Amino acid sequence: MKNVLAINAGSSSLKFQLIEMPEEKVSAIGVVERIGLPDSIFQIEANGKKDKTVQDIANHEVAVKMLLEALIKKGVIQSYDEIDAVGHRVVHGGEYFSDSVLITDEVIETIEKVSELAPLHNPANLTGIRAFKEILPNVPMVAVFDTAFHQTMPKSSYLYSLPENYYTDYGIRKYGFHGTSHKYVTERAAELIGAPLESLRLISCHIGNGASVTAIQGGESIDTSMGFTPLAGVTMGTRSGDIDPALIPYIMEKTGKSADEVINVLNKESGMLALSGFSSDLRDIEEQSETNERAALALTVFAERIHKYLGSYAAKMSGVDAIIFTAGVGENSDTIREKILTGLEFMGVYWDPKRNDVRGKEQFINYPHSPVKVIVIPTNEEVMIARDTIRLSSN
Amino acid sequence: MKNVLAINAGSSSLKFQLIEMPEEKVSAIGVVERIGLPDSIFQIEANGKKDKTVQDIANHEVAVKMLLEALIKKGVIQSYDEIDAVGHRVVHGGEYFSDSVLITDEVIETIEKVSELAPLHNPANLTGIRAFKEILPNVPMVAVFDTAFHQTMPKSSYLYSLPENYYTDYGIRKYGFHGTSHKYVTERAAELIGAPLESLRLISCHIGNGASVTAIQGGESIDTSMGFTPLAGVTMGTRSGDIDPALIPYIMEKTGKSADEVINVLNKESGMLALSGFSSDLRDIEEQSETNERAALALTVFAERIHKYLGSYAAKMSGVDAIIFTAGVGENSDTIREKILTGLEFMGVYWDPKRNDVRGKEQFINYPHSPVKVIVIPTNEEVMIARDTIRLSSN
Repeated sequence: MKNVLAINAGSSSLKFQLIEMPEEKVSAIGVVERIGLPDSIFQIEANGKKDKTVQDIANHEVAVKMLLEALIKKGVIQSYDEIDAVGHRVVHGGEYFSDSVLITDEVIETIEKVSELAPLHNPANLTGIRAFKEILPNVPMVAVFDTAFHQTMPKSSYLYSLPENYYTDYGIRKYGFHGTSHKYVTERAAELIGAPLESLRLISCHIGNGASVTAIQGGESIDTSMGFTPLAGVTMGTRSGDIDPALIPYIMEKTGKSADEVINVLNKESGMLALSGFSSDLRDIEEQSETNERAALALTVFAERIHKYLGSYAAKMSGVDAIIFTAGVGENSDTIREKILTGLEFMGVYWDPKRNDVRGKEQFINYPHSPVKVIVIPTNEEVMIARDTIRLSSN
Repeated sequence: MKNVLAINAGSSSLKFQLIEMPEEKVSAIGVVERIGLPDSIFQIEANGKKDKTVQDIANHEVAVKMLLEALIKKGVIQSYDEIDAVGHRVVHGGEYFSDSVLITDEVIETIEKVSELAPLHNPANLTGIRAFKEILPNVPMVAVFDTAFHQTMPKSSYLYSLPENYYTDYGIRKYGFHGTSHKYVTERAAELIGAPLESLRLISCHIGNGASVTAIQGGESIDTSMGFTPLAGVTMGTRSGDIDPALIPYIMEKTGKSADEVINVLNKESGMLALSGFSSDLRDIEEQSETNERAALALTVFAERIHKYLGSYAAKMSGVDAIIFTAGVGENSDTIREKILTGLEFMGVYWDPKRNDVRGKEQFINYPHSPVKVIVIPTNEEVMIARDTIRLSSN
């Protein structure tokens, strides 16, 4: 048995899970928030007990020490030596990483280099990596990239129709995100269907506050709805998804905002929040959809854009064998799944309203006779990180 | 019999057709180019004879007089009085016009007001309208809008996921274009299929140097690939189509261009021109596609994005009864049609390579047993303009 820490570091936060491998058993889970701010919050759950403390936590190194001490205090481990490996979520691997990778100084340099493509996320992820490197210098660490799974996309999918030097000089292309989640449910779908991944055409709908749809052929991502950044694709909680690019200067002129400010509106004040006028949370919006016209419209827009991607990606793969729903909304909202799935009989999708009445657990929701399977699969990015961490650190 | 002039006025050009109605017989066709520039070009074809003259033409009024005089000189008409009505193409009708309209002073004012949404096109169209009003003050004139056909789109299709006041204050929404063409082939498809338009779900692919795909249910446009401007949607001759909106500030920063300059690149230096590296013309690119890797890739990208729209719009309408190809490329390139159509059997599209070997004429290219019909229909925007002009000016 090996203990793997799966880490997701933000600029002022650190999420962690301690996972026993290969059993994939979570022995502790927690989060540190407001790192570097007054009244930081530390929460941990282990052995069925939750603890929360509020105190100033100066930086990520202090946070790492706190979480390790807490693991010892709670009897989950006896000493630091029992941490066998640490896996770090890293948002952007650019074109450098098509798989997870054992972290070396060179890897850290490359992640730094790619920071330009993910200026909010990669530096924060690196802060987490550096903190662990300081505290556990001899423990192998692995970086798991949100973009890696999509590196199999063919050029015709990832290339924008833009001047060639935009790609060669500036790295402008579709990268795609949520890769760890799409990969997890892809592998799980093949197991549940009982068919080799190589034979399957899958469409994976990761629908949370962020949302992306991926076409997966023979186990490889061949197209995905997010683009150069996670702004592109479908309507999301606060993100607009695709819009006519010519709108940017028009909005700038009308509002007096800079281009960056407009993109900020598109990322943070658009999507379901803008359509509904009151919330980015699908649960709030569903609740009001029978009495509030804008809420109803927002749900229609949200579902319809994903619905259209199902048709689009089925066309891309000349048909589809299974559709997967995952992440917060995808796993839990039967209403949204119903809206997305309705009217796809023409492409062989026959879903069962009774089976669709499921929240947060693995279940086929298609009728048995349906040529296209539809499966709800709760995602598990932490297990995916732990798997890759073991695979790459055990040599 | 009535003589209708169908006019398409650009900022320095004037295209015209004289059409005998209701026979829909073209008795003269021509174009004036470089109006207001030295060495303007006037071309006309009537009674099987083509003429071309080069001389300075100061403005659109002079051009209008020239074309009317030429019609008399060629014996097509005896006097100005024989022009019964004039129909003008107008690019943008905003939300004001969901049909063509008899031109009054109020209509001209409204077209002016909408110019903000089409600053390059509407003022040019108005120049043509004003010139004819001056020369033929008593002849009824009709405006036919590129956007009107798409005004039937439901709110869930035309609304972007943006702050509400962007729509209410600034008119930001999907308008769609090529409406006159999409409407023409829609009506023609119903005739050719021999079924009432109300019963049909159609996808119309207008593929020329500009390209748009429209979903038409019961004769009404319910979604279309172009957006607030004609930049959005699929890859075109020189237009990028949809890209991640977050790329605009990134490109600005990398290239030092302003937002407007970036959009100019997206409109004029992108698309097939950028992908191939040598031409925006599909014919040039097809010619080199077997020896030139970038040409081959460009064709794949071009076809694939339209192919995906077919799946997307089939999903939107819960299936499709017929797919229509029109405009320069759609009517003439069997290669592009083949690339677009391949792999759609899952949604009932069975096309016949032999029947697909057709250029510029009406033809079903599906196998007889195919549940989904596929039809090549040469578009005829001028006839559509003439029809609306007669309908609205004959009261």
